[in-house]
Amino acid sequence: MGRIAILGGTGPEGIGLGLRFALAGEEVVVGSRAADRAAAAATDMRAKLAGVGCKTPVSGADNAAAIDGADIVVVAFPYSGVADLLPGLVSKLAGKIVLDVINPLTREKKVFALSPVAEGSVAEAIQALLPESFVVAGFKNESAEELVEIGHPAEGDVVVCGDHAEAKATVIALVNRVSNYRAVDAGALLNARFTEGITAMLLNINRRYKAVTSIRVLGLDGEH
Amino acid sequence: MGRIAILGGTGPEGIGLGLRFALAGEEVVVGSRAADRAAAAATDMRAKLAGVGCKTPVSGADNAAAIDGADIVVVAFPYSGVADLLPGLVSKLAGKIVLDVINPLTREKKVFALSPVAEGSVAEAIQALLPESFVVAGFKNESAEELVEIGHPAEGDVVVCGDHAEAKATVIALVNRVSNYRAVDAGALLNARFTEGITAMLLNINRRYKAVTSIRVLGLDGEH
Repeated sequence: MGRIAILGGTGPEGIGLGLRFALAGEEVVVGSRAADRAAAAATDMRAKLAGVGCKTPVSGADNAAAIDGADIVVVAFPYSGVADLLPGLVSKLAGKIVLDVINPLTREKKVFALSPVAEGSVAEAIQALLPESFVVAGFKNESAEELVEIGHPAEGDVVVCGDHAEAKATVIALVNRVSNYRAVDAGALLNARFTEGITAMLLNINRRYKAVTSIRVLGLDGEH
Repeated sequence: MGRIAILGGTGPEGIGLGLRFALAGEEVVVGSRAADRAAAAATDMRAKLAGVGCKTPVSGADNAAAIDGADIVVVAFPYSGVADLLPGLVSKLAGKIVLDVINPLTREKKVFALSPVAEGSVAEAIQALLPESFVVAGFKNESAEELVEIGHPAEGDVVVCGDHAEAKATVIALVNRVSNYRAVDAGALLNARFTEGITAMLLNINRRYKAVTSIRVLGLDGEH
């Protein structure tokens, strides 16, 4: 398999994805602004993985160092990090597959919605910031809460989109190796605006039903 | 059961919904700008329903007349009809449950997306136009293609949202009587912007997979 860097990897979504990628046999490098926090998160993750007999290497580094040698770079920091962190990493990320899992969520009067993003979605904004990177959007709808429960299979469809076919195919292959997820290719990167919206909708559903939900696309296998 | 008017009911989505509502035992009045076109569509629908032994009354009328006596008024015309038709029906629709199934779809270079709607979604725009009506969004993601195949059960989750609890509960009960659909309550009406986006995403997926897809929300029954 390959090596996956997760920038902003010490947050709940980053940790959850890192655990699942490691379980799928991918070497994981947790990236953070502070290398010591990344190393501490990696230590915790290794302990958790050892508990289920998984010995895949997981290490920590600062964000810039984490990128070196990575086949896929996941951006998993909060939305504000797009403007704060990415401009300093443009050249390091050139030529890389950048997997964007960020949702620009807002919460007002207990209702989740999305911050307006001029480019249409976070993924499109990142592609505009990183014109020489291959941005793919995926894992937008998968809750950290479910991802971190590694004793439990994670289920649902991971909608993937992007404008670079080869990079998208690499991410789709990754998704299909992770737990019980199935990748669904929605096509062009602009679909990220819809998958980001699904996250807000699912969070509103979660609150109403006191549940942790995900989505499935019905009808792909001609079952209709 | 009750009586359901479907404004713009001679289009494929309106006809498909009308057939499914009639199968569920709801009296259907097809509305159109032209009463004769509505009557012709109703005649076709009765013939199709008779073919499967369904004798629920289906009739046609012009849009304004269709509203009289309806318990639920479905708006199923193209997005342009919101600005063209609804201003003339404000007082007739006061106090009514208005079920909005419209998606503001665009298609450019074979990619589906949404027209920008200042209010956030068609449903919110309709509620702003009809302040004395009880707007509920639903059936945004259900394809006409699947709805009209009445010999075939229609499956998937119908995400419903709205700011009027009683109207929403009425629509949820309706959804749960239609074919194999399950209603999922997403909460406030602003969630319509996300369900409208899901339609665009599913159409992009349909094109890529040569499929007719719908969605399911996983995890509602605590299966996670």
